[in-house]
Amino acid sequence: MWKATIKVMLKKSVLDPQGQAVQKALHALGYQNVPDVRIGKYLEVKVALADRESAAAQVREMCERLLANMVIEDYTFELTEA
Amino acid sequence: MWKATIKVMLKKSVLDPQGQAVQKALHALGYQNVPDVRIGKYLEVKVALADRESAAAQVREMCERLLANMVIEDYTFELTEA
Repeated sequence: MWKATIKVMLKKSVLDPQGQAVQKALHALGYQNVPDVRIGKYLEVKVALADRESAAAQVREMCERLLANMVIEDYTFELTEA
Repeated sequence: MWKATIKVMLKKSVLDPQGQAVQKALHALGYQNVPDVRIGKYLEVKVALADRESAAAQVREMCERLLANMVIEDYTFELTEA
């Protein structure tokens, strides 16, 4: 069993309105020294497979089919034995 | 300047309907070997401060005031020089 921790972020070139809204809210709370906020998704997905390569291949496939929108998002993930 | 990478997750005891929905979708796509999915937020926040302690203190404060709902969520963060 493996636990994949996956980060899905908007590509650098894509505008992040949620991040901008949070940055404005932080400024309004007095944190003027925050020049940039980007927001993404964080997923913990367990995969019942024995070997690391198969688990990595499946996580990659799940990201590209469902978890990330490859047109506007990038993903990275790490595997730990669970 | 520091870059804080922040993960905000629902507490273990709180139901995660978004995670359950994604798990069902993965099952429907044929990934039956996924017993658990949890979904949270991932934030990259830049903070213009010189020393690490002040940056960490400010990130903690921002998380507790705005970025996480401490009633139902937990957060962790890491700082890297940016």
